[in-house]
Amino acid sequence: MSKNVLILPGDGIGPEIVAQARRVLDLVNQQDSLDLQLSEALVGGAAIDADGVPLPEATLDAARAADAILLGAVGGPKWDTNPDFQIRPEKGLLGIRSSLGLFGNLRPAILYPQLAHASTLKPEVVSGLDILIVRELTGGIYFGQPRGVRLKEGNVREGYNTYVYDENEIRRIGRVAFEAARARDKRLCSVDKANVLEVTVLWREIMEELSKEYPDVELSHMYVDNAAMQLVRAPKQFDVMVTGNMFGDILSDAAAMLTGSIGMLPSASLDVDGKGMYEPCHGSAPDIAGQDLANPLATILSVAMMLRYSLNAGATADRIEAAVSQVLDQNLRTGDIWSEGMQKVSTTEMGDAVIAALQA
Amino acid sequence: MSKNVLILPGDGIGPEIVAQARRVLDLVNQQDSLDLQLSEALVGGAAIDADGVPLPEATLDAARAADAILLGAVGGPKWDTNPDFQIRPEKGLLGIRSSLGLFGNLRPAILYPQLAHASTLKPEVVSGLDILIVRELTGGIYFGQPRGVRLKEGNVREGYNTYVYDENEIRRIGRVAFEAARARDKRLCSVDKANVLEVTVLWREIMEELSKEYPDVELSHMYVDNAAMQLVRAPKQFDVMVTGNMFGDILSDAAAMLTGSIGMLPSASLDVDGKGMYEPCHGSAPDIAGQDLANPLATILSVAMMLRYSLNAGATADRIEAAVSQVLDQNLRTGDIWSEGMQKVSTTEMGDAVIAALQA
Ligand SMILES: [Mg+2]
Ligand SMILES: [Mg+2]
Repeated sequence: MSKNVLILPGDGIGPEIVAQARRVLDLVNQQDSLDLQLSEALVGGAAIDADGVPLPEATLDAARAADAILLGAVGGPKWDTNPDFQIRPEKGLLGIRSSLGLFGNLRPAILYPQLAHASTLKPEVVSGLDILIVRELTGGIYFGQPRGVRLKEGNVREGYNTYVYDENEIRRIGRVAFEAARARDKRLCSVDKANVLEVTVLWREIMEELSKEYPDVELSHMYVDNAAMQLVRAPKQFDVMVTGNMFGDILSDAAAMLTGSIGMLPSASLDVDGKGMYEPCHGSAPDIAGQDLANPLATILSVAMMLRYSLNAGATADRIEAAVSQVLDQNLRTGDIWSEGMQKVSTTEMGDAVIAALQA
Repeated sequence: MSKNVLILPGDGIGPEIVAQARRVLDLVNQQDSLDLQLSEALVGGAAIDADGVPLPEATLDAARAADAILLGAVGGPKWDTNPDFQIRPEKGLLGIRSSLGLFGNLRPAILYPQLAHASTLKPEVVSGLDILIVRELTGGIYFGQPRGVRLKEGNVREGYNTYVYDENEIRRIGRVAFEAARARDKRLCSVDKANVLEVTVLWREIMEELSKEYPDVELSHMYVDNAAMQLVRAPKQFDVMVTGNMFGDILSDAAAMLTGSIGMLPSASLDVDGKGMYEPCHGSAPDIAGQDLANPLATILSVAMMLRYSLNAGATADRIEAAVSQVLDQNLRTGDIWSEGMQKVSTTEMGDAVIAALQA
């Protein structure tokens, strides 16, 4: 049965890196007879320029109708000064996430051995790193009510936010994490602050409850401050980590930086049925936009994640990941991952190399 | 005028490391005519064993009367199984902090060049690291009301906590941080999540307001997820960082682990007048307790911090820190920081060496 993929190039380097990812997707679509229908739409700054809003109705409709969405990146200085927060490029993404209920954020932190030197950590500590952080993306303190700044007695201002999860939200993200762990090394570490925060006491309780349904997955618990330490001390101890929105924001970014090559990291945001939006972890890099300099590999790897998690084409995903590893073996590097002795290539040349590897 | 120092050895390795720190304090007290009166009291598990509670009235009274408090460490498996959370060793510390209003937590992350190899990060990234993280310790989400687990409609459980700061609390910790930055490299980075959390929008606003009183200090702001990345990417970019209780918990532990030698890190918790409790960052290490194996240097460096921040004896603090650097230069190492080619020494021998360096 035919499936629909919506492509959202976005801003900055978005169009360039997505163009290479689309070439890859077109090729494997043909090679592996995936029967994917591709379409494109505007989001972010590009949509503001064309339609006045970061998430036009037509884009949201197309996103709702799609089985999977591939996003480049949004944002740039051109739109940063808009005093109306609603007309910022980032609102386009947040709008898709909340409208489509994309609560399950998968953030792999993978360090290809070929790039181990790029990390600020010693090679033996990070080479071959392969962690998956599962972050709850549509709840927790970033969305909790009540929130705001109020006046207390004595005219003293007080800011407040609410960190809240109900058991259904926890169970939902827990299942995503247990399923992911089941498909990997079967070890899940749930990160909380259950010694202090009641909301995470409930979190821990639900994870324990869920673990009975996944007897093949080994569940452990870790406090968030210790998790931050352990990511620095011995990151390879982890397989899958699961945590709430805020802790996940912090830990997934720290874990990404362990690799030293953010230009290599894909991500996914899934709904309850496995439909998802896929995008590189890096931003729109307006400083190098339009110069054929950007690294398209994170976006190409996002295509692989999309095939695996939303389009039931895991074998094709494996092929793409192997092709990426192969171009690294060929010593091809865009500027962001380049080092002495390597061959510096453009965005397009990197795309060419991945295509060639897939055709070999 | 005579000043009172209360010493709380605590549990596990606490008594051993504090004994060496006390020798150092006794010596400099004499050498530099500091006129300090030292006394000891029970806290934590030791107090539970003797008096049935982790913070006996007599200890709290002594803490109130003291100008500064030196703590070893509390806790151990012996008391971990107590189902009554109020009779856990850690409650002794929390009780002192809240009773004495010790809201200002100073967490240095310093990597002596002699120990640069101990880090999981590359030497060039961390050697000579010298960050001070100022963490608010008695407010924020760890203490905010309302909190708990409630039933929603449909019998769905929901956990909730409240992240709250009023402008006076923010101003108070802000001043501690600006003052600390003023005494160092005059750069302060305030960490928040002001793009999402209203409570930290207020935080940022108050920091900006305060910065007018400290024109000599350069204030910058960073989102907490980016701060976690930057600590991994380029930690030496920071001088002083200031943040709330929860973000500070996470970032200060991550920063400590960057050094790879937690056995070297002191900490302080200050009240509004500069009175404080000083303690090593590491725990009570029950596995090596009583064997003369523990590293006393973090506790000795806590004495230095105490002299600097609470006892107005900065020159003496400098002398102690120089003595510690000197024993490292002599290649003396306790087991936790030992490496090939170094001389392994006991807790007592390390104390001897610091004493000798101070007497030289
Ligand atoms: Mg982030
Ligand atoms: Mg901590």
